[in-house]
Amino acid sequence: MAKKNKSALEEKKGISISEITNSSSIKSIQNKRKVEVDTNTLIASILNKDITALSRAITLVESKNPKHLEKANATIKGCLPHANKSIRIGITGVPGVGKSTFIETFGKYLTSLGKRVAVLAIDPTSTITKGSILGDKTRMEELVKDENAFIRPSASGDSLGGVARKTRESIILCEAAGFDVIIIETVGVGQSETTVHSMVDFFLLLKLAGAGDELQGIKRGIMEMADAIAINKADGDNLKHARLAKVEFNRALHLYPEKESEWQPKVTLCSALHNEGIDAIWKIILDYIQLTTKNTYFQAKRNDQNKFWLIQTIENQLKSDFFNAPKIKKELIKQLQLIEDNKTTPFAAAYYLLKL
Amino acid sequence: MAKKNKSALEEKKGISISEITNSSSIKSIQNKRKVEVDTNTLIASILNKDITALSRAITLVESKNPKHLEKANATIKGCLPHANKSIRIGITGVPGVGKSTFIETFGKYLTSLGKRVAVLAIDPTSTITKGSILGDKTRMEELVKDENAFIRPSASGDSLGGVARKTRESIILCEAAGFDVIIIETVGVGQSETTVHSMVDFFLLLKLAGAGDELQGIKRGIMEMADAIAINKADGDNLKHARLAKVEFNRALHLYPEKESEWQPKVTLCSALHNEGIDAIWKIILDYIQLTTKNTYFQAKRNDQNKFWLIQTIENQLKSDFFNAPKIKKELIKQLQLIEDNKTTPFAAAYYLLKL
Repeated sequence: MAKKNKSALEEKKGISISEITNSSSIKSIQNKRKVEVDTNTLIASILNKDITALSRAITLVESKNPKHLEKANATIKGCLPHANKSIRIGITGVPGVGKSTFIETFGKYLTSLGKRVAVLAIDPTSTITKGSILGDKTRMEELVKDENAFIRPSASGDSLGGVARKTRESIILCEAAGFDVIIIETVGVGQSETTVHSMVDFFLLLKLAGAGDELQGIKRGIMEMADAIAINKADGDNLKHARLAKVEFNRALHLYPEKESEWQPKVTLCSALHNEGIDAIWKIILDYIQLTTKNTYFQAKRNDQNKFWLIQTIENQLKSDFFNAPKIKKELIKQLQLIEDNKTTPFAAAYYLLKL
Repeated sequence: MAKKNKSALEEKKGISISEITNSSSIKSIQNKRKVEVDTNTLIASILNKDITALSRAITLVESKNPKHLEKANATIKGCLPHANKSIRIGITGVPGVGKSTFIETFGKYLTSLGKRVAVLAIDPTSTITKGSILGDKTRMEELVKDENAFIRPSASGDSLGGVARKTRESIILCEAAGFDVIIIETVGVGQSETTVHSMVDFFLLLKLAGAGDELQGIKRGIMEMADAIAINKADGDNLKHARLAKVEFNRALHLYPEKESEWQPKVTLCSALHNEGIDAIWKIILDYIQLTTKNTYFQAKRNDQNKFWLIQTIENQLKSDFFNAPKIKKELIKQLQLIEDNKTTPFAAAYYLLKL
């Protein structure tokens, strides 16, 4: 029997099994474990603001095990009626801008107001290197210790789309666990900002003041997405530069047509390190929420985001099914060559491939 | 027999059929017609710079008759080895900017240099109203009469994608017919500029000088696509405004990161009505062609455009096949409602629909 039940409960060969490790006990422990991952209990614990249960549910969402997928979906379904009640804030900025310090200071400020804050991340680089931002939690020492804060590093995955799905579902779980503010951090790489923008209510761009020419080299489209730009490290000798940068960013923002939200993006100064200007940023976010709730843009945007993710998921799946078919892969290369050689047109090649 | 052969060759009941309309003559005329649309002859005529043959081939490309589609494809295939030798220029600008006058003056300038110029158009509004830009050829009186110019109004179609395909294929036919410069006109509506941008070598944006605030309200993305901005109607009292606008546009263009083409977009003044600054624009285009030919961007861009159209056509077809299936149409509405009611997530809904 000892050999049959190769279990961690069994300590050493030759030692007789104690009463607690007899087969009925083992069965009872196994049952308890089953109970622990029982979906209904998990949902109840999440709704009861149990952080361990929340972590476990996010792990299920991130898992690649097909069995877990089913459980994850059931858990999300159970949490959904209790979700959608937080303010979702996207924060981006290039490395060195002080994102971690900012999120720590901003998060602490929010918990000091009695808010519960969850911090998630989308990091497309982690899909390649399997590393992750927020991975080094020591960068947010104070916030990690705060019982009203929950920090979760970026999920890793094969594609940004996969990571995005996991983060979107984690938002739902965090909201069901009663978090009032969800912060989604991202680093300015690839399509990550666009991805985060499509799942948050408010998009905050962190910048540094340099030596003029602030707008040079800013990534395309980022300015258009920002609901506010916070110029960080605006302290000491930097303050003068930061004020000039504020003028320049304000000028640039005014060049864009009015946003559908009717919101005029704001530019503000802050020093996360010295805890300056943080309250003003929260005030800006609240003003935004007030305006967009009043003009119904807030809910309309969330509905649009849901529709976007539905259509996006379907389209991605259709495309990947098609282009990953071995036959298509092979023929696609041939057709591209024929196009380059002026022997066929893109349209004729497309219909040829579709016929296959 | 008179009743049997209801033909236009028959003039009136009761009048006997003349020798020329006897059955063997009719057969011979029908055979001649068949010969006229014979693909090989059509191709040979196009290569021989026969404008009537070119027009007929474009009509085949634009036709919705499945029989014509086959002939169109065969004609394009025959023309392909002789295509790809022109300079393709996209021209856009809001109504009132003077596009027609500009294209007339620019086109005449090019034919005066011995160039052969074809003018096509992409007009997404024509897919809705069935009208078309360039439809009123009287707006280009001089160019229409020029034997080295060919003007074709925008194809109409059910979708911008359909119109785009027809225009892309018309470009090939025009090139095979020996046109050195192909101008694609579009009006700043919907996605039309992006569509034109994806099929030309050089993208020219026409603007007017207003009362300052030139950049306010400019359509997103347009500035980024422009290889040159020509401020039209820069004459008389307008000249001062136009010069100020030039400074402002130059400033704005410098805010964008360097283009992959290594080309720094130019801003220039012109007056199409008074034939001023037109030669400078052609000089800019030639400079661009020289730079991008040297750094190989020119051909690389065309290859990318071909690949883009191949992938785009496949993806559009996959999507339309999926979303136009009656079962999906019905279920999609239901799933969207379930998402709004917090009863499912976009991802769960997507996989539910994909399973169907």
